[in-house]
Amino acid sequence: MARVNATERRKELGQQFRVDSIRMSSAAKSGHPTSAMSAADLLAVLVDGYLHYDFTEPKSPANDRLVFSKGHASTLVYAIYRAAGVVSDEEILDYRKLGSPLEGHPTPVLPWVDVATGSLGQGLPIGVGMALAGKYLERLGSRVWVLCGDSEMAEGSMWEAFEHAAHFELDNLTAIIDVNRLGQRGETMVGWNVEVHAERARAFGWHAVIVDGHDVEAVAAAFAEAVATIGKPTVIVARTLKGKGIAAVENRNGFHGKPFDDPDAAIAELGGLRNIRIDVAKPKPRAERTAKPRVLELPHYEVGSEVATRKAYGDALAALGAARPDVVVLDGEVSNSTFAELFAKAYPERYFEMFIAEQQMVAAAVGLQAVGWRPFVSTFAAFFSRAYDFVRMAAVSRATFSLCGSHAGVSIGEDGPSQMGLEDIAAFRAVHGSTVLHPCDANQTAHLVAAMAETSGVSYLRTLRPATPVLYPPEEQFEIGGSRVLRSSEDDEVALIGAGITVHEALKAADLLAEEGIAARVIDLYSIKPLDSETLLAAVEATGGRLVTVEDHWPEGGLGDAVLAALADTEEPPRVVKLAVRGMPRSGKPEELLAAAGIDAEHIAAAARRLVAVPSGRLSR
Amino acid sequence: MARVNATERRKELGQQFRVDSIRMSSAAKSGHPTSAMSAADLLAVLVDGYLHYDFTEPKSPANDRLVFSKGHASTLVYAIYRAAGVVSDEEILDYRKLGSPLEGHPTPVLPWVDVATGSLGQGLPIGVGMALAGKYLERLGSRVWVLCGDSEMAEGSMWEAFEHAAHFELDNLTAIIDVNRLGQRGETMVGWNVEVHAERARAFGWHAVIVDGHDVEAVAAAFAEAVATIGKPTVIVARTLKGKGIAAVENRNGFHGKPFDDPDAAIAELGGLRNIRIDVAKPKPRAERTAKPRVLELPHYEVGSEVATRKAYGDALAALGAARPDVVVLDGEVSNSTFAELFAKAYPERYFEMFIAEQQMVAAAVGLQAVGWRPFVSTFAAFFSRAYDFVRMAAVSRATFSLCGSHAGVSIGEDGPSQMGLEDIAAFRAVHGSTVLHPCDANQTAHLVAAMAETSGVSYLRTLRPATPVLYPPEEQFEIGGSRVLRSSEDDEVALIGAGITVHEALKAADLLAEEGIAARVIDLYSIKPLDSETLLAAVEATGGRLVTVEDHWPEGGLGDAVLAALADTEEPPRVVKLAVRGMPRSGKPEELLAAAGIDAEHIAAAARRLVAVPSGRLSR
Repeated sequence: MARVNATERRKELGQQFRVDSIRMSSAAKSGHPTSAMSAADLLAVLVDGYLHYDFTEPKSPANDRLVFSKGHASTLVYAIYRAAGVVSDEEILDYRKLGSPLEGHPTPVLPWVDVATGSLGQGLPIGVGMALAGKYLERLGSRVWVLCGDSEMAEGSMWEAFEHAAHFELDNLTAIIDVNRLGQRGETMVGWNVEVHAERARAFGWHAVIVDGHDVEAVAAAFAEAVATIGKPTVIVARTLKGKGIAAVENRNGFHGKPFDDPDAAIAELGGLRNIRIDVAKPKPRAERTAKPRVLELPHYEVGSEVATRKAYGDALAALGAARPDVVVLDGEVSNSTFAELFAKAYPERYFEMFIAEQQMVAAAVGLQAVGWRPFVSTFAAFFSRAYDFVRMAAVSRATFSLCGSHAGVSIGEDGPSQMGLEDIAAFRAVHGSTVLHPCDANQTAHLVAAMAETSGVSYLRTLRPATPVLYPPEEQFEIGGSRVLRSSEDDEVALIGAGITVHEALKAADLLAEEGIAARVIDLYSIKPLDSETLLAAVEATGGRLVTVEDHWPEGGLGDAVLAALADTEEPPRVVKLAVRGMPRSGKPEELLAAAGIDAEHIAAAARRLVAVPSGRLSR
Repeated sequence: MARVNATERRKELGQQFRVDSIRMSSAAKSGHPTSAMSAADLLAVLVDGYLHYDFTEPKSPANDRLVFSKGHASTLVYAIYRAAGVVSDEEILDYRKLGSPLEGHPTPVLPWVDVATGSLGQGLPIGVGMALAGKYLERLGSRVWVLCGDSEMAEGSMWEAFEHAAHFELDNLTAIIDVNRLGQRGETMVGWNVEVHAERARAFGWHAVIVDGHDVEAVAAAFAEAVATIGKPTVIVARTLKGKGIAAVENRNGFHGKPFDDPDAAIAELGGLRNIRIDVAKPKPRAERTAKPRVLELPHYEVGSEVATRKAYGDALAALGAARPDVVVLDGEVSNSTFAELFAKAYPERYFEMFIAEQQMVAAAVGLQAVGWRPFVSTFAAFFSRAYDFVRMAAVSRATFSLCGSHAGVSIGEDGPSQMGLEDIAAFRAVHGSTVLHPCDANQTAHLVAAMAETSGVSYLRTLRPATPVLYPPEEQFEIGGSRVLRSSEDDEVALIGAGITVHEALKAADLLAEEGIAARVIDLYSIKPLDSETLLAAVEATGGRLVTVEDHWPEGGLGDAVLAALADTEEPPRVVKLAVRGMPRSGKPEELLAAAGIDAEHIAAAARRLVAVPSGRLSR
């Protein structure tokens, strides 16, 4: 009897979700109701019988997590919230209106949305990160449920997630593929060949269950099977109908992302408005995390010694691991190059090897931070470009984590341009709310790693392959948004502004210029975003508006452009010569490549001489 | 007898490749000899018996293509070239030295290298593009051979390639996975479970053959089986030993990317230097392509009508298809949004639907252009961030193709930030040799599409979702590197500089300012890279150095930064107020979101008023 009741209730709940999806999208005159309708029964069963979630305590690590990898089915998310009683009927009808937290695709503006989705292929790899936390860090028995679209199965990131979930034996993760056959424009490559989806998943080490996604009893059995499966994740491959329930659109092409022409008729066809309330099961009570932070003891490096900033990153990360039990580290199979291995050796239980799968790596960090952990993520600076969409979306998710890109610029030498991060500053500056740091010495690196750990949003640290001289004493503090004036006098005629390897070249250039009687100010602009505009303004004032910026990066969007932007709307903008990598680099020795790119001491000095020789705007005034 | 000879010759050739890999990396004191040595026998058999390639005519479409997806095995590439007699013994010993075309990872600086590799997971999807050309466009019986590493099988892009290759039934494509078990840092997730690799490939629709990668007879049989397999691509899963042939390093961890300590001993262990010459089989003679270009007839739009620039892109693309038989088009399952569907309907045989797999889409374009086609590629501007590493590497490949990102900026409205391209200008500007265009009207868009088709390198066109007024007559010509002054007078006190949607807002702002007696110059800076600095300098001169830039993009790395960079090293740099999207956008109507972001006419006018009220640097001089 109870089973019959559950079945009927779930069927009705599915219809309610459909009706509400139509109401929302019709009120908004946009949205994806047909994509919500195919998954309505799947979610009705999940929230009515399998999800454990306390809406009053959304951040609790004891909660299950529900991620809509197919974020365009947002009306289904909000329909669930109405049924759960946390969003009102009035509120759902403000869907997609300016100021409503019920955005076109789900975002964490709502407290129950952990991560933003809407760029397909991201929800499942993010779910892998959440499941890693649940299985290896929290161990509270929570589960992660991810609703996937079948179109997004074409994204390689989904298969990174499949491989990693099986590798880590994430039996607390369930993927639900809503196989409605139809994408935005037509049929998917797989269509309704649900067995193909299942076979691929099995080949990647998952347990797979094929089910009719509109048969609520079969769906319930599949969820039960997922919960009972030990040692591997489960995928539920659900054959569904896009636009299910409305004969005129059901399983037909051409209705993606379109509200209904006659919503009242459609709602009537579905049996009218419903107001079923569901009581989502709460998780078992949990104990608080017990590990407490300790005082951070950063590594020390002797001034004048030579240490690679990437090595200092690893040392600092290990120190941070000792101090902060919430820090977790991920690396993309290059931990012996990025020096993340120093953390891995010290705290293996908080280190996740993500192999050569940068998208999954960043996504896992997004998932880990969503459930309260503090990830640091590393690979070569160049290879973060592989995960750029994930970083972009992390900002929409209001995520907080740190990335470290090593082997930046031509200073890596012989490996050549494929391995040189030359666009990373531009890419990371253009991430909303980001922090971009580029230290030139080991002690500075250590302090910046510590500062990043206290910074919200996406923070990025750029490190160098070669060893560089230690310039700063270990006790010197470095803050985000700061800079250092390494040389200055009352007679400065020009300022040389660099970061990372180019600070050392700028210092050499200042020596060359000094021999000729030209006083040059040298600024280490280690914090590229945010940027210390006060120090730059003082340099403009002191030098009569003559600046040389120099960076081991393409000319576009890097340090030079950041300096220009900071000074653009000032009373007397300076004249700036921007030195950067303008030709495609080749293989060669680091010093050869710095010279070939025109960013070594000789070229900096030449640019300074030219600026000093020609009266600047300021001097002519 | 012949067979025995072939077997012995191939074994010896494999040893020669190993010896030469050791010689090169020892001379360079860097490189990845152990990664070359595992694949040496595979390649010996391929070039000695199965590859068809005319080294004297590398661009011939009749040639097979050989792509090293594991680009770090570059010494093996160059060892093949020495054996083929196109690179001398002296030349290989300049490996990785400045000026040598034998770079650390292969690049098209050498005429026989079609595409740069070294960012793992790219060679196979690029090979899919080459195989699409071979099977559907050239039909000359050529084959594509791709050597893959087993570590890179963790990259999702590889599985995009597997799915697409099977979907397109690319039986002219053979992937060879060199399963040497060991990555840079340790064992892969799959290790030597070669059956796992094979099962996954089969689940994705491939024919799979497992083989001992050092048994040259078995390898030859596998290649023969690949050639004989019809209707599906073949993967050869080869179990190999990293560092094969040298007992001290063979199959041991810790020797990735390291030259040998004692190269002479290692060479002796391999039996010493060899000088085998191979005659790689040439392809059958071929006929020239017969299709000839016709005169381009661009679409026309009436001034004052409202047309979305994305629609004009589709119209122009169809026109280009009629004029140029070498133009091919790819889209990521959104062709009804980007309007690539207009080309697809007109020229289905030159249209490739790439589904939601942006990495594979861009990689296929790289492959298609490498064999002489001219690809245009489209998806939402936001989703090109998914393929950023492929675009970065395309520049290293010296590739020429065009990308069109639609639905740029907050002007898309209700769908919200996940769908808004707000970092695309920054990202594409920071690609070496790129062109970045952002038209504001339909006729301009059509002319720019035509101009892109004549431009080398990576070119990017940013289009808008909403319809915008047609400002320019159809006959007006637009060139890359140009701009348009839409309003000007002798009394201009300020210049308003925009592109795309903000041109229309700037025009409205100029009207508002005119009512107050403020004359504002309006500049349509449709070519953001390269940029018309002459027109900007004239505006600086005319307005006393007062500029307002306005863009539907993050503040970093976009139009405003491009303007600043162009004027940075001029005698009297202007004062620039940069309007851009500074807060995370929400869902809402386009006009609401432009206002909320501070980039609509009212905000532009306010910025102009402020600049005019405060004496600028120039006026105070």
